[in-house]
Amino acid sequence: MHDKNKAVVLLSGGLDSGTTAQIASSGELEIYAMSFSYGQRHTVELEAASKIADFCKAREHRIIDIDLGRLGGSALTDSSIDVPKDRSEGEMASGVPSTYVPVRNLVFLSYALAWAEVLGAFDIFIGVNSLDYSGYPDCRPEFIESFEKTANLASAASAEGGGRFKINAPLMQKTKAEIILEGKRLGFDYSLTHSCYDPDENGLACGKCDSCKLRLKGFREAGLKDPIKYQ
Amino acid sequence: MHDKNKAVVLLSGGLDSGTTAQIASSGELEIYAMSFSYGQRHTVELEAASKIADFCKAREHRIIDIDLGRLGGSALTDSSIDVPKDRSEGEMASGVPSTYVPVRNLVFLSYALAWAEVLGAFDIFIGVNSLDYSGYPDCRPEFIESFEKTANLASAASAEGGGRFKINAPLMQKTKAEIILEGKRLGFDYSLTHSCYDPDENGLACGKCDSCKLRLKGFREAGLKDPIKYQ
Repeated sequence: MHDKNKAVVLLSGGLDSGTTAQIASSGELEIYAMSFSYGQRHTVELEAASKIADFCKAREHRIIDIDLGRLGGSALTDSSIDVPKDRSEGEMASGVPSTYVPVRNLVFLSYALAWAEVLGAFDIFIGVNSLDYSGYPDCRPEFIESFEKTANLASAASAEGGGRFKINAPLMQKTKAEIILEGKRLGFDYSLTHSCYDPDENGLACGKCDSCKLRLKGFREAGLKDPIKYQ
Repeated sequence: MHDKNKAVVLLSGGLDSGTTAQIASSGELEIYAMSFSYGQRHTVELEAASKIADFCKAREHRIIDIDLGRLGGSALTDSSIDVPKDRSEGEMASGVPSTYVPVRNLVFLSYALAWAEVLGAFDIFIGVNSLDYSGYPDCRPEFIESFEKTANLASAASAEGGGRFKINAPLMQKTKAEIILEGKRLGFDYSLTHSCYDPDENGLACGKCDSCKLRLKGFREAGLKDPIKYQ
């Protein structure tokens, strides 16, 4: 019943998840892309996700509406909280930033697992990264390992002995520059991606939020020019 | 920042989650009830949940719309699959039934954790039960224990040392009769609850699905009359 050639890929539209989709689709796997609409300030992210899903020849791209934003608590979903700008690397590394959406990756992975079970897929890909992770607790390897154990206990497919779910996080130990070089090696087009937490009305990136700064530093260290436009 | 007197209670409107809400609210905790609308065939469940939230003096009751039903794969959300009727206890105990919604409790607990983090709560209550569990893998104690570990790795509150999340499953080792007797002891009103997988157009329970049969057996063994009406 379960087909080992299918994989669910979590796709935000950013540089990391785009590279992850490229990695997943470069092997023998048929990919199913999953994105979430959760009261983000920007929908330009979801447009980027759709372009990447096409580019990586995803068999299907599902955009799931979730109410996570309504629970409040993050600058990314609550317009009364400002997105932090021009933080130093020291500031980024210290503590959890206000752009944290409560346990976002846990919710996303749970949906991915539900879809994987219905599809008969055992592989799930997520573009989390523990080096350039900007202080989010649910990007750490110990979280991903623990989720994989929980997933295999939660699921009927696994309970019936059909196989084991694997949570693939191929970027976990890579620097941003290494991620970009790997994506380029596999032929990925970074002009499709969007990283900014606070784009202007035309969708142009600010160049100043944590996400833009990490991205620009990555391209600089990779010796490449970032193909997207900034304000 | 986190307040140990708040608790998030997952409330489906059934006998088990109703008893769980009664248990949670009988102590020192202020309860926040959370229910899900996920393409169930019946909304009578959600009406029951609202009545129970009122009865248990929940500070707030959130009903979250989720797209889980759209992923397909269950008789509870897909009208092309029949709800199984009149199964023997042997049939119920063997394997995963078609009423299984893919990794439902994992998705529900993930949302509960997101809300708990925003509220500053560290206690989450869920009415899962490993004895009368009707074959669902995500009702087993090893799943709940594994989720609790994952939750504490996923969350900013826990990462910052604010405390540890606890997943309370007070019914885990109880028979249905013991659950009912405990609820009655605490003054719970079972006429508010709804258990049937396949009610008629008036919301009356069928008395024949797995859930009705387990409920009726529980009342019988507790020596009590079930206060709800059947078709």
